[in-house]
Amino acid sequence: PANCYDLNESLVDHAEGQHFLNEAFKIITEEVLCKGTDVKQKVCEWKEPDELALLLDLELRATGEPEHRLLQRVKDVAKYSVKTCHPHFFNQQFGGLDYHSLGGRFLTEALNTAIYELSPVFVLMEAEVLRGLRQLVGWTEGDGIFCPGGSVSNMYAINLARYQLFPEAKSKGLWSLPQLILFTSQESHFSVMKGAAFLGIGTDNVISVKVDEGGHMIPEDLDEKIMLVKSQGAVPFLVSCTSGTTVQGAFDPLDLIADVCEKHKLWMHVDAAWGGSVLFSKQHRHLMKGIDRANSVAWNLHKMLVAGLQCSAFLLKDTTNLMKQCHSATATYLFQQDKFYDVNLDIGNKSVQCSRRVDCLKLWLMWKAVGSNGLAERVDRVFILVRYLVEQMKIREGLLLLHEPEFANVCFWYIPPSLRGKEGNADYQDKLAKVAPVIKERMMKQGTLMVSYQPLGNKVNFFRLTVLSPLLSQKDMDFFLNEIERLGNDL
Amino acid sequence: PANCYDLNESLVDHAEGQHFLNEAFKIITEEVLCKGTDVKQKVCEWKEPDELALLLDLELRATGEPEHRLLQRVKDVAKYSVKTCHPHFFNQQFGGLDYHSLGGRFLTEALNTAIYELSPVFVLMEAEVLRGLRQLVGWTEGDGIFCPGGSVSNMYAINLARYQLFPEAKSKGLWSLPQLILFTSQESHFSVMKGAAFLGIGTDNVISVKVDEGGHMIPEDLDEKIMLVKSQGAVPFLVSCTSGTTVQGAFDPLDLIADVCEKHKLWMHVDAAWGGSVLFSKQHRHLMKGIDRANSVAWNLHKMLVAGLQCSAFLLKDTTNLMKQCHSATATYLFQQDKFYDVNLDIGNKSVQCSRRVDCLKLWLMWKAVGSNGLAERVDRVFILVRYLVEQMKIREGLLLLHEPEFANVCFWYIPPSLRGKEGNADYQDKLAKVAPVIKERMMKQGTLMVSYQPLGNKVNFFRLTVLSPLLSQKDMDFFLNEIERLGNDL
Repeated sequence: PANCYDLNESLVDHAEGQHFLNEAFKIITEEVLCKGTDVKQKVCEWKEPDELALLLDLELRATGEPEHRLLQRVKDVAKYSVKTCHPHFFNQQFGGLDYHSLGGRFLTEALNTAIYELSPVFVLMEAEVLRGLRQLVGWTEGDGIFCPGGSVSNMYAINLARYQLFPEAKSKGLWSLPQLILFTSQESHFSVMKGAAFLGIGTDNVISVKVDEGGHMIPEDLDEKIMLVKSQGAVPFLVSCTSGTTVQGAFDPLDLIADVCEKHKLWMHVDAAWGGSVLFSKQHRHLMKGIDRANSVAWNLHKMLVAGLQCSAFLLKDTTNLMKQCHSATATYLFQQDKFYDVNLDIGNKSVQCSRRVDCLKLWLMWKAVGSNGLAERVDRVFILVRYLVEQMKIREGLLLLHEPEFANVCFWYIPPSLRGKEGNADYQDKLAKVAPVIKERMMKQGTLMVSYQPLGNKVNFFRLTVLSPLLSQKDMDFFLNEIERLGNDL
Repeated sequence: PANCYDLNESLVDHAEGQHFLNEAFKIITEEVLCKGTDVKQKVCEWKEPDELALLLDLELRATGEPEHRLLQRVKDVAKYSVKTCHPHFFNQQFGGLDYHSLGGRFLTEALNTAIYELSPVFVLMEAEVLRGLRQLVGWTEGDGIFCPGGSVSNMYAINLARYQLFPEAKSKGLWSLPQLILFTSQESHFSVMKGAAFLGIGTDNVISVKVDEGGHMIPEDLDEKIMLVKSQGAVPFLVSCTSGTTVQGAFDPLDLIADVCEKHKLWMHVDAAWGGSVLFSKQHRHLMKGIDRANSVAWNLHKMLVAGLQCSAFLLKDTTNLMKQCHSATATYLFQQDKFYDVNLDIGNKSVQCSRRVDCLKLWLMWKAVGSNGLAERVDRVFILVRYLVEQMKIREGLLLLHEPEFANVCFWYIPPSLRGKEGNADYQDKLAKVAPVIKERMMKQGTLMVSYQPLGNKVNFFRLTVLSPLLSQKDMDFFLNEIERLGNDL
């Protein structure tokens, strides 16, 4: 490669670069994909942050490094990162591995393009993928876009609902509008609150609707709260339902909520970031009965469908080009009208972003690889594995479910031997609350398992396992239970 | 792989998957990285959208496809996509290729993790990269985060400025606040307008500040407009300056604007999405003199530094944890306090997103590979190439610069032979306006070159070339000029 002033040569040596990339690919394959999915290897290699910073030698310096050192860095980053593809990673609502999706992601990165102007392949592909997803919702037409995560999708819903009711919000701001109120359940995702704050609506204007024991929004409470808000002179405009809540995996009763929304003429949004994938399954899609009556849906395909972070579809029933009207800006340098092709291909103006990542290719390629049937099978499989796990938990001692799982979340307490039969003791709850954090610390430090825990309302710390990876089989479920017992039986 | 009910086996066949991935990697290397950077190959393979949809066979079906067909799809997507890494792609403010960054991106995709809880490697790495970038801004402390694009970074600035002045905005919404006004130049990026609309402030409350002929904000006009707004009873709260405007590549005079912001106690934000990279260059960082006086900076490392879409840093001078206070939500299931490690590692709550992509690894690895010196060299090289191009344009006939380039944007009209010397004709401007679109259509259909065009104010359609790729050498500049002449000399 040339120095800065030698204009005859490029600054990049292609042969060197290709060699690095080939070697890096081998390391990624070995360290992340092979070892990372091998149950004999660790899920994580825990180090104290100070020690980790030293090991990784993070400091950025003036001069570059030779290839062998850079490859060692690739290896180190892989080694000390959590293996979300590992069959014993039950910690998050993403994880698992799909080779076809990953191939699509490598291609996306290499192509390094954005969805707007002059990327006709991805404009067309995104439209087709969104069409396929809308079809599962039950809509023969409509609109949609891929967003950088479910939180942003939920914000889109809030912004569109507001704009539909008061188009002047876009130019004049909220000062020209009456006080707006939106509704969501106590157990909905915190992004609804974050979105309300970000969009200038304020968290006080998000009304929390009661849930039943299983975590489902109670439509009667919703109806009452809407009427109360109206009687106080504020303007209800949106209900954000949840299909698959974060902790319990509950599906709000969409059909009943749709009745309430119709009655009060409110925008019905469904945050199906986690649960949406049941729509692929003939057997389980009833959980979202009524979804076709929604105005908008947020659905993260990087969760149960393992499309890879991130792949968040925002789907819209609207056919009046509401999203473009709401989000567009005049930018003659970007959206010229004197192009030689159909300017409707310039979909960039539907987004509040400018250069928007290509998130459709990985999903499209995976869908092509296994078909809708294959994706349905993965969803069905999750339910079967959860059923197996729950049956095993009932046979074993010391595993107490919060409730029967409705979906892929299994919430339970591990009751160590010393606490069994002591439910009546005054300090029982305090002691139980300390069990999960200790087991979690042990599993992380030993690197054998990852599962999350949290309290919920008056329920002290419990484990929440999420089942989603297509790599899972029965022996991983058995391992999970054995390992929790091994880690906690002396507590 | 098993069927759905056979719980003894996984649904995924690792050997098949690995094979597919290896073959896909070979195709990506050959089709995108080798052919895509080969000047003897096309930049794009234009097809009419209808024809393209047929060629790609986009439809999603119930059943899956065999490996050979999927690999053909990888090949087809690569073939018909625009090659943004091609040395004759001058169309956007991204493009080029860096092999180390790309290796980091493949690793990021394979690891499939998000920056929050339990990804200590990336929490620490992001902090180090942000520290390095802040140091270039001139701050020894501060805060920051990677955002999904510069538009979102600009929104963060607006939201933080609003929150700092009126913390009650977060809970009560804008109804509790006086009318807020922000200022940006006529030639700033449209995302400032989009952000104001999205955040509930409204586009009417964005005041457009005049620019000089070169596209720089005029500080005196800013000062006057702020005083006018105050006299009308509204509350100015933010000035969004631009370092490197989209069309002309102009750098607003930051030091003079900082004086105005100090005088009126306004938040000074700098949208340096495009221009920020000059901070690496000792020779050219003077263009951003005064940047250290800003409150926040948006800087896209996927633009001139070729880190790959996307890599958008939002940098903040604040040391009071303003971003976390502004964006946090209470989510006990995510941000428990009884963890065995320092809960300050849980930086997720600084973001309005939940699962946030890892955008730091690719930049970190590239920075390690070539050092700050190597990145500075790339920036210096851009200026040298632009200088060479401009000198050649002055020697040749029919190439008219709008103005001397200040940065990496070269704005010019191609005057075809038939229009030369006809500047006085009544239809001259009309005819000139039609030249760029025709040349653009020809270059796209022949696939030889990509460069954008647009009008600006009373200036009819002109070409805007952006120079950024480290692959470029003098012969690509020569090719560019020859090709524009070849495509337009009969007009």
